[in-house]
Amino acid sequence: MKLSEIASLLGGRLQGDPGMEITGVSGIEDAGPGDITYLLKPSLAGKAEGSSAACIIVKDAFLPGLNKSQLAVDDPQLAFVRLLEHFHAASRPAAGVSGLAFISEGAEIDSQAAVLPFAFIGEGARIGAGSVIYPGVFVGAGSKIGRDCTLYPNVTVREGVTIGDRVRIHAGSVIGADGFGYIMREGRHIKIPQVGGVVIEDDVEIGACTTIDRATTGNTLIGKGAKIDNLVQIAHNVKIGVGSIVVAQAGVAGSSTLGNYVIVAGQAGIADHVRIEDGSVVGANSGVMPGTSLSKGAYAGSPVMPHRQWLKAMSLTARLPEMNKALQDLEKRLSGLERRLLREE
Amino acid sequence: MKLSEIASLLGGRLQGDPGMEITGVSGIEDAGPGDITYLLKPSLAGKAEGSSAACIIVKDAFLPGLNKSQLAVDDPQLAFVRLLEHFHAASRPAAGVSGLAFISEGAEIDSQAAVLPFAFIGEGARIGAGSVIYPGVFVGAGSKIGRDCTLYPNVTVREGVTIGDRVRIHAGSVIGADGFGYIMREGRHIKIPQVGGVVIEDDVEIGACTTIDRATTGNTLIGKGAKIDNLVQIAHNVKIGVGSIVVAQAGVAGSSTLGNYVIVAGQAGIADHVRIEDGSVVGANSGVMPGTSLSKGAYAGSPVMPHRQWLKAMSLTARLPEMNKALQDLEKRLSGLERRLLREE
Amino acid sequence: MKLSEIASLLGGRLQGDPGMEITGVSGIEDAGPGDITYLLKPSLAGKAEGSSAACIIVKDAFLPGLNKSQLAVDDPQLAFVRLLEHFHAASRPAAGVSGLAFISEGAEIDSQAAVLPFAFIGEGARIGAGSVIYPGVFVGAGSKIGRDCTLYPNVTVREGVTIGDRVRIHAGSVIGADGFGYIMREGRHIKIPQVGGVVIEDDVEIGACTTIDRATTGNTLIGKGAKIDNLVQIAHNVKIGVGSIVVAQAGVAGSSTLGNYVIVAGQAGIADHVRIEDGSVVGANSGVMPGTSLSKGAYAGSPVMPHRQWLKAMSLTARLPEMNKALQDLEKRLSGLERRLLREE
Repeated sequence: MKLSEIASLLGGRLQGDPGMEITGVSGIEDAGPGDITYLLKPSLAGKAEGSSAACIIVKDAFLPGLNKSQLAVDDPQLAFVRLLEHFHAASRPAAGVSGLAFISEGAEIDSQAAVLPFAFIGEGARIGAGSVIYPGVFVGAGSKIGRDCTLYPNVTVREGVTIGDRVRIHAGSVIGADGFGYIMREGRHIKIPQVGGVVIEDDVEIGACTTIDRATTGNTLIGKGAKIDNLVQIAHNVKIGVGSIVVAQAGVAGSSTLGNYVIVAGQAGIADHVRIEDGSVVGANSGVMPGTSLSKGAYAGSPVMPHRQWLKAMSLTARLPEMNKALQDLEKRLSGLERRLLREE
Repeated sequence: MKLSEIASLLGGRLQGDPGMEITGVSGIEDAGPGDITYLLKPSLAGKAEGSSAACIIVKDAFLPGLNKSQLAVDDPQLAFVRLLEHFHAASRPAAGVSGLAFISEGAEIDSQAAVLPFAFIGEGARIGAGSVIYPGVFVGAGSKIGRDCTLYPNVTVREGVTIGDRVRIHAGSVIGADGFGYIMREGRHIKIPQVGGVVIEDDVEIGACTTIDRATTGNTLIGKGAKIDNLVQIAHNVKIGVGSIVVAQAGVAGSSTLGNYVIVAGQAGIADHVRIEDGSVVGANSGVMPGTSLSKGAYAGSPVMPHRQWLKAMSLTARLPEMNKALQDLEKRLSGLERRLLREE
Repeated sequence: MKLSEIASLLGGRLQGDPGMEITGVSGIEDAGPGDITYLLKPSLAGKAEGSSAACIIVKDAFLPGLNKSQLAVDDPQLAFVRLLEHFHAASRPAAGVSGLAFISEGAEIDSQAAVLPFAFIGEGARIGAGSVIYPGVFVGAGSKIGRDCTLYPNVTVREGVTIGDRVRIHAGSVIGADGFGYIMREGRHIKIPQVGGVVIEDDVEIGACTTIDRATTGNTLIGKGAKIDNLVQIAHNVKIGVGSIVVAQAGVAGSSTLGNYVIVAGQAGIADHVRIEDGSVVGANSGVMPGTSLSKGAYAGSPVMPHRQWLKAMSLTARLPEMNKALQDLEKRLSGLERRLLREE
């Protein structure tokens, strides 16, 4: 693709040879000759100098003295995303149901969906147009997969799960396993039947080896546009709000409710029956205790406290040996004074 | 089902219309008209008032002034479980081996077991009566699955694993992968062959995407009636006692032994060669250091301490900035006194 | 196998009956009659006495007064590994492609590789000699698996992944899922296409249900001989050095770089853009903050500090209630002095 074509695709201003051939798009550290890349912020200009890229996408103004082609745009990061999409148009498998897939009675598969070998579609399940069901995927009885979804290999969607449009579920994830609920009677754990479902709204993306349990009754809910990373645990009856983000290895326990655009960082643990307000951030590896209600804010620690307080508390935790020494010194000095005053009496 | 029939099924006393038709069972917040639900404790009576349910199961005595049918029983929670079982009798796949499953030589599959498409049963493996093997399940050579077990889709049971009766393993879990053991010689990690097995006793339930490693030699053991949640790691040669509970994303490292009815809360980490006495509780996100022996009690923190001590220590951690300030103030006041006494000399 | 044969296999000195028949190899606590076992260090001699084993492998010198056969070698642990290998020669499936596997156009499978039923090999993928592809494995288009690799059941290797020789990937793991990258524009998370790959070098072992994401551009890299345990998260563009170890449930976030022979203990979390020097150790459940550079050392805590400092800080954290009490006592004593001096004026 010629640099001039890229400039007109992105609507940017070009400095350099418009006829230069661009052969790839890459991050600034991975870029090779022939690649176009972008500079996240002008303060990183040193990286632009050191990069092998043929052309750098910059924000608004050209960098002075840079011996490379430059393309100035409003939003370099978005331009980079658009170019990645352009250069790497995803090749989706052709529509159609493989003769090696198993389609149960009453399943409805849109003629524009692709179902690959060794996929299993349960009774009465529905797969929408444009969706791709990779090998080893299980879709349980009566579950519905919307349009333009991708279920990567070895994903399990149990019965009674409803998935919207443009949802991606990465390999090995499990949607709709039984919630973890028992009552103890006479030394035995009696299982509480988990008869609810899971609803995953449009534009959700779910990482690999993530588990989202079905509700005891009612539904576990993942709101529109939420993004969930790998190895995340979402327990029964959890509600995740629109546009929220849950990073890898975090867990949300039973019946907790996250508002919209909440961010839960990696390895954080949200206990059961927690409520978190819209726009809140829960820091990495932090822990929210059962039943807590968090008003809008940024939190960290275990149990969580406001993020600023945590930063101070943590720096003091590291300095506890000094604090302890200071305390002992004070004790000695004070004892000295006391003894002296005693002598003076 | 008529309310009078439910009352006689559960052995409770009814207030309201015995002929009322009940169409579903649901949690108090999810219940719609026609549903029956239950009240966990009288203090939550406000929830009963606000619920759309047709009938509320209460403990022993009717709630006064509630404009709904009520059913008084000894144990509302158990009554709820029984009703869920009654209304949602699990539909198990019909017995029989799918022509699309792969059954190796010498495998013995009971005529009352169900083996679904794309399941793989290894040489000499045994599947007991009433067990269901879902698509994508792998059962390795010589492994034994007892009666009335359910192996959900894409579960892997490696060779040499023994599973009792009425065991449920949720989708994507892996039983019997190699333990993580190496010795370092001349800059190389040499693998210690992991030639032991895994024994899972009767009535165990294992969540989704959980890993239980085979022993180096001998067996990793999950005791009768233990319940293990999603994304849990159980390392080689671990022993989990009868009726113990391990909550999501917790991990137990090599050769550790949990007694009976131990509870390990979510994201807790038990290091290797730990011993935990019967009935102990290890709190969420806490960490037990290698080789620790915990006598019966409740623990939290990392490294763990008694739960009460941890609560105090954590509230003081959050107050460390205040403590530090108090320390500095004391230092100033003490210095003032010292200077003054010096002047007086 | 006769004890004399074992002695000559391991090159050790024997005390006891050379004609004794040894029927198995086992850890010292699992060993039964007929088994050979080993003693890790002389200080554990009590365990040797109590073991049912027929013969104990010891280091250099025979234990006095032990009523068992003994075999003295330089390196008992290595001898034990060699015996385990000898007694438990892994039975690999016979070479050949199952008629129930799906092989896409242009895939190249070495005649000495084994591809089992329900495996799916994508277009142009390559499987090297001696490699075993278990049921339910997915190998994406153009991915390359080297020689003598084992991909256990239900492993997913997405497109564009390169795997070296003698690599083992345990069941349920996912290599090459999309990295977790979005940019937020006008209230929507726009996906950054993840078009890079994953390179796994020779002699790597990867546990069960572990996820290693593909790079945004460039490659995520797992260096030669690295060992990764179960349920580990390796994010996009991470580089793991040669011989490094990542223990179960640890996570490494985007673009972080671990040097050679680094050890990351269980449940530790390494945030993004971290650099860790060769030979460093990050303790269990600790957390390394974004962008941190760790020079060679042992670290623990969250955020991490040097391991020794952490030990002190943690013991003082548990003692915070005492420290707080001491602080209050000092305050009272100081106030007493101040009041007294005031009265004296």
